[in-house]
Amino acid sequence: MSKIDVEEVWALAHATADAARVETLALFRGQVLGTENKVSDGYDPVTLADRASERAMRSLIEAKRPDDGILGEEEGVKEGTSGWTWVLDPIDGTRGFVSGTPTWGVLISLNDETGPKLGVIDQPYIGERFFGGLGQNGFVGPHGKSKLVVRGTTALEAATIFTTFPEVGSAVEANAFRKVASRCKLTRYGMDCYAYALLAAGQIDLVMEAGLQPYDICGPIAVIEAAGGIVTDWSGGPAHHGGRVLAAATPALHAEAMAVIAALDI
Amino acid sequence: MSKIDVEEVWALAHATADAARVETLALFRGQVLGTENKVSDGYDPVTLADRASERAMRSLIEAKRPDDGILGEEEGVKEGTSGWTWVLDPIDGTRGFVSGTPTWGVLISLNDETGPKLGVIDQPYIGERFFGGLGQNGFVGPHGKSKLVVRGTTALEAATIFTTFPEVGSAVEANAFRKVASRCKLTRYGMDCYAYALLAAGQIDLVMEAGLQPYDICGPIAVIEAAGGIVTDWSGGPAHHGGRVLAAATPALHAEAMAVIAALDI
Repeated sequence: MSKIDVEEVWALAHATADAARVETLALFRGQVLGTENKVSDGYDPVTLADRASERAMRSLIEAKRPDDGILGEEEGVKEGTSGWTWVLDPIDGTRGFVSGTPTWGVLISLNDETGPKLGVIDQPYIGERFFGGLGQNGFVGPHGKSKLVVRGTTALEAATIFTTFPEVGSAVEANAFRKVASRCKLTRYGMDCYAYALLAAGQIDLVMEAGLQPYDICGPIAVIEAAGGIVTDWSGGPAHHGGRVLAAATPALHAEAMAVIAALDI
Repeated sequence: MSKIDVEEVWALAHATADAARVETLALFRGQVLGTENKVSDGYDPVTLADRASERAMRSLIEAKRPDDGILGEEEGVKEGTSGWTWVLDPIDGTRGFVSGTPTWGVLISLNDETGPKLGVIDQPYIGERFFGGLGQNGFVGPHGKSKLVVRGTTALEAATIFTTFPEVGSAVEANAFRKVASRCKLTRYGMDCYAYALLAAGQIDLVMEAGLQPYDICGPIAVIEAAGGIVTDWSGGPAHHGGRVLAAATPALHAEAMAVIAALDI
């Protein structure tokens, strides 16, 4: 890991999240959401807020740390020379955003060559921020602040599992999710990145998703790891490249879910 | 409809929602949620907050309007003599509540013999209240207040539809949901009563659920009707007895969804 001024990058991370909060809230639940189709053959709404949010975040980072790389959902890759890269999802859960739900979020991470070291999950409408990494860990919300600590669930039978879409990904991936979820106590849907925040905050135990992009998961990885949890891909390897992701509160619970997936030989 | 002091009952409705807010928030995301199983063969968590919330609401109503009836999820029916009955769901979405999601709610309605005339959907954690009926209609949230007005979507192809669980209800009911949803632009899950609030606020277009109790839907009916929307059962009749419910932003959209359901002959 390259040397870094922890206080400086945390101040920048929070300033970046603050800037995104302003841009996204300005258009949330507005009369004109300005959606357009990014992928012509699928439903992938991108709002003006998404682009304004990323632009505001990039400006701040480029001004304060011009040598860092940036990977953003909307504007792609800016190569850096510092060994550090900011990974930005200006609105994770755009479909939730255009539906007015309060569970989309702004995702920020700062990665070195091994993966995310600092992460932020911000929910601008509620005014909640979940963050962790580089020795820090915390939550600030409308009713106060606290540390983030995963809970100690070790068995699937006692676990609450979340995923965003019941279809999860491919048919094979959906089947794998159903196999794991069928062993759990409670299954819930529809929360986008907010599910990872709930895991870090000790409210739920597992999140299992597929088809993710790096910017969908880098922020959550750092937040969950700082809260004591574990995030891998479905083979047990690093998850920060996206794809199939399994996040768990404890190693024992992670191992139980991994055993179910491994038995499927996918 | 029996004569009623509109200002008095609205003041009582808001005071009742305020009281439930205090009781539910005291235990939301707490270390000890005190869940127990109400139905021994199924997963139906009831929190201490659920009971404390209903108790607080009933006390206020009994003190201010002792002749009104009360129907609450936790403590059942108190017969009244005024011709008016308060219908209370102290926490709609207990599974969302115990998972820490911010989309459960407190539901209140005041019904005469024909159905709900005043309704409140309150989300204590975010600090949002959606309300309507008896000539009033409004929204108060963390970023301001506004009127509630449904949006003008008239075709399924342009509609966003919500339900809480992908399984919806019985296999027949799930199939009916899928038939309607497959005609829609966007389908989302997991919001409990918050979906009805989003419909009233003009953010989404349809909510379709089954297996509801009267206290799950009476509050939402009054709020949605006051915002210009329409709520019926799947046969087009009154929905305030619960069961299968279809809520729509416009009569034209409602008719399109009803045609899909009717074609199934269920």
